[in-house]
Amino acid sequence: MAVVVHKYGGTSVAGPERIRTVARRVARAREAGDRVVVVVSAMGDTTDELIALAGRVTANPPDRELDMLMATGEQITAALLAMALGDLGVPAVSFTGSQVGIITDSAHRKAKILEISTEKIAEELAAGNVVVVAGFQGVDHRRNITTLGRGGSDTTAVALAAVLGAPCLIFTDVDGVYTADPWIVPGARKIGRIAYDEMLEMASLGAKVLQARAVEFAKKYGVRVEVRSSFSDAPGTVLTGEADDMEDMVLRGVTVDRDEAKLTILHVPDRPGIAAAIFGSMAEANINVDMIIQNVSAKGFTDVSFTVARDDFRRATAALEEVVGRIGAAGMTSDEDIAKVSVVGVGMKSHRGVASTMFSALAREGINIEMISTSEIKISCVVEAKDADRAARAVHEAFGLGRREGDA
Amino acid sequence: MAVVVHKYGGTSVAGPERIRTVARRVARAREAGDRVVVVVSAMGDTTDELIALAGRVTANPPDRELDMLMATGEQITAALLAMALGDLGVPAVSFTGSQVGIITDSAHRKAKILEISTEKIAEELAAGNVVVVAGFQGVDHRRNITTLGRGGSDTTAVALAAVLGAPCLIFTDVDGVYTADPWIVPGARKIGRIAYDEMLEMASLGAKVLQARAVEFAKKYGVRVEVRSSFSDAPGTVLTGEADDMEDMVLRGVTVDRDEAKLTILHVPDRPGIAAAIFGSMAEANINVDMIIQNVSAKGFTDVSFTVARDDFRRATAALEEVVGRIGAAGMTSDEDIAKVSVVGVGMKSHRGVASTMFSALAREGINIEMISTSEIKISCVVEAKDADRAARAVHEAFGLGRREGDA
Repeated sequence: MAVVVHKYGGTSVAGPERIRTVARRVARAREAGDRVVVVVSAMGDTTDELIALAGRVTANPPDRELDMLMATGEQITAALLAMALGDLGVPAVSFTGSQVGIITDSAHRKAKILEISTEKIAEELAAGNVVVVAGFQGVDHRRNITTLGRGGSDTTAVALAAVLGAPCLIFTDVDGVYTADPWIVPGARKIGRIAYDEMLEMASLGAKVLQARAVEFAKKYGVRVEVRSSFSDAPGTVLTGEADDMEDMVLRGVTVDRDEAKLTILHVPDRPGIAAAIFGSMAEANINVDMIIQNVSAKGFTDVSFTVARDDFRRATAALEEVVGRIGAAGMTSDEDIAKVSVVGVGMKSHRGVASTMFSALAREGINIEMISTSEIKISCVVEAKDADRAARAVHEAFGLGRREGDA
Repeated sequence: MAVVVHKYGGTSVAGPERIRTVARRVARAREAGDRVVVVVSAMGDTTDELIALAGRVTANPPDRELDMLMATGEQITAALLAMALGDLGVPAVSFTGSQVGIITDSAHRKAKILEISTEKIAEELAAGNVVVVAGFQGVDHRRNITTLGRGGSDTTAVALAAVLGAPCLIFTDVDGVYTADPWIVPGARKIGRIAYDEMLEMASLGAKVLQARAVEFAKKYGVRVEVRSSFSDAPGTVLTGEADDMEDMVLRGVTVDRDEAKLTILHVPDRPGIAAAIFGSMAEANINVDMIIQNVSAKGFTDVSFTVARDDFRRATAALEEVVGRIGAAGMTSDEDIAKVSVVGVGMKSHRGVASTMFSALAREGINIEMISTSEIKISCVVEAKDADRAARAVHEAFGLGRREGDA
């Protein structure tokens, strides 16, 4: 019998009735001959509610205690799903991340998995049980409870699939990965197969279907991951390492990321060590910088702009204020009303003209590009937030990513 | 610095504001020089809500999974209290029962503590931290999460106090143990000191202030336990092994227990082996029988009545139906509308006439006694449920247990 890992997200387990629906799907997989390991998220908005509860106790909850608090959400779902399976006559046992042996580092709220013991799971599967694992969590070497960051249940599922040598089915509230967010781009099309690297860029760039870390894991261990709907039986999107035999598309999709903010340092003296001072201060504050542009120097002075995650915006501003004085810059401006529109595709490597097609599409719409960054398989443009949806539609159209004749 | 164990029940931690109040009390104890270990229950009705949630998934949740589910309630409170303490500048860490090394047997939902490792707690106390422990829970030797039964957080607290050689303060929503439930008997008086054995009877007989198992633990290890209000600074009730220097009272208090039901087997052939058949069937079904009476035999037949916990009533009825046929009895009746009114006191041993005073008091009120049972330190009478409160008031009055001249 083959082992398979299922993962069900918060929407799929949002209430008792949905948990029973998930149990029926798991029972069917088991009847079909699979040994099933199920990873579950917290029910619906539970995690947000727990964080709000903490906020009513203190303005600055320590990360260790937040992890202790949040981890209960997945534990509740795991227990309820095991009960629902039992109700269908399917023997099942639930486990916390700690019980199942998911060991992480000690970086609370964004812990990385270091090792997973498969002993417990193998034992329970051999005994004929479905194994239900609370996602999103582990323990460090001192047995403190840790969590893996937003969407961390994806990582739990893919990591378990990796150590079990099993495929991983990610059941979610959408039926796959789309060429763009269908809410923004009505003509968006479901992608049948996507390369790990493409999915990685899509995830990093704002496609919320899968946590980027989960994709990295899948790529590293060659885990076959399929993203599909928990509400239907339609085939979803398969992540693979193989890009060659995939559809003959230059680009895979368009993403919109509204989770960044832009900072600009004005009239910076253009001499060695300035960039080191600016970005050194960001590194010290543990803030990741995404895009950076520096205007051409004029008369020995320049402007430096860069983007950071919106969550880090306040801390970044505070850290920079000190730097501005120290390096003799004229001042600082900031802009939270930005969005990053990107196109992604491994085919881009061997095709010319992708950038110019994108820029032309935006120009035709009269949309101003504030910043540009490129990699081998993606091009990103920062635009004003109000233009983002229109930009995504224009770019999606320009590359012909939409539904085609004969599409289901 | 002396170690002290605090325990706060569900009402005391029912919301963020109350948790902050608890944190302030713990902070004061720490400022006064104590090293504090805090045991917490789940917030308010959380445990009942979790059980209701399970009921919406399945009618028959397995005990193992219920424990997994319920244990989250105390974990949430523990994390929130540690956060609230941190907010006051008091370093604190929270732990699950598992993390702190509370090992139990595998009897889910009513597990017994087998051992507690003090290593982790000692280490954290030495580091200057307040240690917040999720009550009510532990793990068995296979690391399955277990719970200790209703009120189990009391047992967690007293057991921790025992292994730490510390006194235990039980903070609750009443300010001590009373001579009777003040809601039933308005003149009830707070008891300053009570012997373990008396408290044990009071707890078993329906005084809900402390779980009986916690009192057994306290008695076994000589733990000084004080029950007091979490909403005031008034002194509470101290449990001790010393009864001699206590107030010169024959009786300590009156209790009312409505959690039993009565079963009667009619016209049982009066021959050897019949009682064994009846109560053997209860033992097989793992049902505890409390009071038993057998009418005087007439013409070779007798009626046998006994009481069981109301929770076991349905199972007891089902088990008995089979026995009735097998032993040739005429049939079975049952009565859920009963209550057990008891008087408790170690002084009873050396005083005569306690039983007759109680029976006279009930007779004066015209209350019929259905069953009687006695021990060295208690007398219990089963009466109709509708008479219970009146019975308690009459008995309380007859023994002069109420407020006296000069009482606070």
